[in-house]
Amino acid sequence: MVSRELSMFLAETIEELTGRLEADIAGGGPYDRRVFDAMHYSLMAGGKRLRPVLTLLAALACGGTKDDAYPFAEALEMIHTYSLIHDDLPAMDDDDYRRGRLTNHKVFGEATAILAGDGLLTLAFEVMSRKLVQDPTPANAKAIAVVAHAAGVHGMVSGQMADMEAENSEISPEQLAFIEIHKTGKLIQAALVSGGLSAGASDEELSALEKAGEAIGIAFQIQDDILDVEGSFEELGKDLGSDHENQKATYVSLFGMEKAKQAVEEETQRALQELGRFQNSSGALLRELMLSLVGRRK
Amino acid sequence: MVSRELSMFLAETIEELTGRLEADIAGGGPYDRRVFDAMHYSLMAGGKRLRPVLTLLAALACGGTKDDAYPFAEALEMIHTYSLIHDDLPAMDDDDYRRGRLTNHKVFGEATAILAGDGLLTLAFEVMSRKLVQDPTPANAKAIAVVAHAAGVHGMVSGQMADMEAENSEISPEQLAFIEIHKTGKLIQAALVSGGLSAGASDEELSALEKAGEAIGIAFQIQDDILDVEGSFEELGKDLGSDHENQKATYVSLFGMEKAKQAVEEETQRALQELGRFQNSSGALLRELMLSLVGRRK
Repeated sequence: MVSRELSMFLAETIEELTGRLEADIAGGGPYDRRVFDAMHYSLMAGGKRLRPVLTLLAALACGGTKDDAYPFAEALEMIHTYSLIHDDLPAMDDDDYRRGRLTNHKVFGEATAILAGDGLLTLAFEVMSRKLVQDPTPANAKAIAVVAHAAGVHGMVSGQMADMEAENSEISPEQLAFIEIHKTGKLIQAALVSGGLSAGASDEELSALEKAGEAIGIAFQIQDDILDVEGSFEELGKDLGSDHENQKATYVSLFGMEKAKQAVEEETQRALQELGRFQNSSGALLRELMLSLVGRRK
Repeated sequence: MVSRELSMFLAETIEELTGRLEADIAGGGPYDRRVFDAMHYSLMAGGKRLRPVLTLLAALACGGTKDDAYPFAEALEMIHTYSLIHDDLPAMDDDDYRRGRLTNHKVFGEATAILAGDGLLTLAFEVMSRKLVQDPTPANAKAIAVVAHAAGVHGMVSGQMADMEAENSEISPEQLAFIEIHKTGKLIQAALVSGGLSAGASDEELSALEKAGEAIGIAFQIQDDILDVEGSFEELGKDLGSDHENQKATYVSLFGMEKAKQAVEEETQRALQELGRFQNSSGALLRELMLSLVGRRK
């Protein structure tokens, strides 16, 4: 159960975000309709919209506005969605279901799914750079750099690579930590930090968001591993136990369920502590959201 | 035959560019080495480096510096390389050779090739945004927006989609024009315009670069179609007649060889006329480069 304030904030924000994303991917003509349809299919499939919500709350917690943060929020959701489309491909995790629906390549074919991912990734940077044309501050430029760093071979792409390498092989705790931090953690961290940057946050505030983001990212990924074992298809909207099926090492398989739950708890506490400095109402919503993620069932 | 000035400029520039690209993709550790190796394999496979050379010459022709233009030049080469990696994938054009070597997925596997493409695309925006952190001008922000627009679903991605849709089906002259302009033209145009923007070019200069870029892009793509019929493996480093094999409509198959050669000639003249306004030595090199592209054999 979340408070009325948080659930209202989430409902309002997700509605506004959805409208903005719809506008971002409008277009397409007789020859390229298919790739627009494919982007739309995955971007509008719902989901928690966690990353953009974190961006917006971080901006508000630092005294900024939603309007200044939205381009980064939209971009982060596009990057997250592209990564799901590419990760689901037959050459990667080969998943048939995502968010309760067929995966992108199952509906549109592999070629279009690859292009839809490429299109969303590129559009993310187009949306952010348009904001920068209007408002070319060093902090906004830094925000794009932070997102690019977190999404690419110093972050998410590198985490997915390490994850692929780990399939069907022994894995060390160091390698697992590398995967969890890079594959999920970095982008969640970038969501918070880019929100802070869009609000002109101080170095101290940015540092707190960075540390909180790392902790949230780790907690979130381990919770995903837990749900892959304990969840149900109805709750998750994707095939269960697919990590196990792919013989993919997870925090749960390496350290056991009890330690996994303990780690989620500890990382969440670490995040809450860092976020304690944001004493306005948005800071409180951010902390409440954090806590709700620990108990999530999807 | 090109002049001593142009061949010296190209040799010097390609050496410097290669060094910068090497530095950009340095990194990788025990868990993600493979994706760095795969990016290196394709980015360092040589090639004409046409797009970055156009960016640098456009910047110099507008009175700017190489240093200010390099981040955009590097980014354009990364984006071009990522597009080749993804286009060669089995789900797309399914090509085994590129630039005389096995294609990326033939060496590293499909999953890594997809990730290497994603990594290069993201790194392109990281390199450009780092420049913007140092030098947050509206023109530099505009340059990123122009590149993103040209690379994504309003440009290259959309052109590749239309190209895939055209396989094994009748194609109209309008659809072919859409493909040629979007798949190749837009990024070549963005190479020139981003170079001009990095140099603080005037609106008139930017407009001339935009028009010249469109003409060069069309001429370049039609010349590619001609070479796919007339070239040899030794010259091209890739399988011959692959367009014909894929039953892909090209300017040559639709209008015949004579009309194709005439179109290359006309578009080149159009580009030369637009570039006539740049009267310094770099403008002259740019025009000479243009002319050399018409007679190219690879």
